[in-house]
Amino acid sequence: MEAQEKATAFAALHHGDELLCLPNAWDAGSARVFEAAGFPAVATTSAGVAFALGLPDGQRVALPDLLDVTRRICTAVGVPVSADIEAGYGETPDEVAEVVRRVIAAGAVGVNLEDAHAARPGLRSIDEQCRMVAACRAAADAEGVAVFVNARTDVFWGDHGSPDDRLGTAIRRLSAYVRAGADGAFAPGLTERPALDELAAAVAAPLNVLAAPALPPIPELRAAGVARLTIGSAAARSVLGLVQRIAAELRAGEDSTLLFDRALDYAEANRLFGG
Amino acid sequence: MEAQEKATAFAALHHGDELLCLPNAWDAGSARVFEAAGFPAVATTSAGVAFALGLPDGQRVALPDLLDVTRRICTAVGVPVSADIEAGYGETPDEVAEVVRRVIAAGAVGVNLEDAHAARPGLRSIDEQCRMVAACRAAADAEGVAVFVNARTDVFWGDHGSPDDRLGTAIRRLSAYVRAGADGAFAPGLTERPALDELAAAVAAPLNVLAAPALPPIPELRAAGVARLTIGSAAARSVLGLVQRIAAELRAGEDSTLLFDRALDYAEANRLFGG
Repeated sequence: MEAQEKATAFAALHHGDELLCLPNAWDAGSARVFEAAGFPAVATTSAGVAFALGLPDGQRVALPDLLDVTRRICTAVGVPVSADIEAGYGETPDEVAEVVRRVIAAGAVGVNLEDAHAARPGLRSIDEQCRMVAACRAAADAEGVAVFVNARTDVFWGDHGSPDDRLGTAIRRLSAYVRAGADGAFAPGLTERPALDELAAAVAAPLNVLAAPALPPIPELRAAGVARLTIGSAAARSVLGLVQRIAAELRAGEDSTLLFDRALDYAEANRLFGG
Repeated sequence: MEAQEKATAFAALHHGDELLCLPNAWDAGSARVFEAAGFPAVATTSAGVAFALGLPDGQRVALPDLLDVTRRICTAVGVPVSADIEAGYGETPDEVAEVVRRVIAAGAVGVNLEDAHAARPGLRSIDEQCRMVAACRAAADAEGVAVFVNARTDVFWGDHGSPDDRLGTAIRRLSAYVRAGADGAFAPGLTERPALDELAAAVAAPLNVLAAPALPPIPELRAAGVARLTIGSAAARSVLGLVQRIAAELRAGEDSTLLFDRALDYAEANRLFGG
């Protein structure tokens, strides 16, 4: 599929009757497993990518390495891929625009851009973030690829204003980002109704929420007007938990039940990857 | 730790009172989890590395990518790392020697070299494989790093002679590889006593076996004279199995218990990777 065709198909998934459940992969292998399970698209997780590379989250992965992982994921799957570029790997709109061009070259047809500063606490000002979003939009349009720009606010994470103010701040921020050219709005950390309903109604773009134990089940999310559900680094951290348990079992010299219990068999794994 | 110091420490682990249990990692993240669990060294798994990169096993990973993953793993952990170089990524002793030099430059102090052909069925002749092993030995010695060369025979895998002949063939092959300069002998696929005892007694180097459901428990392996236990791609495939189950749960729109149940929490994962 051509990039533009993929971009159009990916955008359309946000406007269907079904809630779009988009799993976040951290390497080509996990992306391929998600595709094989039938997901119509996959996203990347910055935290999961960092952990797989042995690094903490927070733009600690060097940009060439991020692009390399993105390229491998886009090569390994046929479905559209949306790339998590955190705060845009830049301090100016021009720098972020260049990152968007390179992510498109790597094969992605969507990006997530967050409004938290990369290297220090706090959020960018609304105006500054709107210039970043507009730069993403313009860079993608100039490349001729209708990249789905998913604008994320981190207002529900960390210590950004009083709890009572957060919903209003999120509505103001996400609405501004959409006016600046974003195709979608992402509010990780928000898990309660009726705030979900209110945010979905107030922002004129598909609303993305992050899977969490406290989140209502999918039918209720649809009823609240949520369009997209992503899982962030949850699967990547679930995998790390399994590796920890396998390691503990091996260290204890016990029978390695976790090693073989429900593992993909070798031939099946090879087939999954085209062997 | 300097390379030579790491190499000496790694070799010594094969001659202690305890059986050396060496887990095989497929990326920097899994290697770091194994190190944090207390393993004194880690190995890589060619199959696991391939799957993480979205490729089937069997030297399908390009050499620069293999070296890149090896370098990341060696950077992420402080313990010695042994690299799986499959059939040596070369058809001549000179080519394999060059790969060993590059693997040492990436930070590894051990290599696994198998006697199966990379791209076609069957095993190399004993003489040919001895020249490959000798080239690894000479390349490492010339670099001044006492790399632990673990010579693997694939005689117990695939269709190599009649079952009755295999033990004798393995003894002949592994003994020749040790005379050619190998520090260790690896016989994946062999799981039964008394064949394990016989092989361990006949080969004048530490014997490495591969974890398998049929393998005797560790105390019995020690009694049989086995020195080293590795897990190959088992943990990597166990992880792929978990990702498949998470994917199925998400696709079904069920409550995502697997996503959060016993996942590493986000702060804990960041701490594990130095954040």
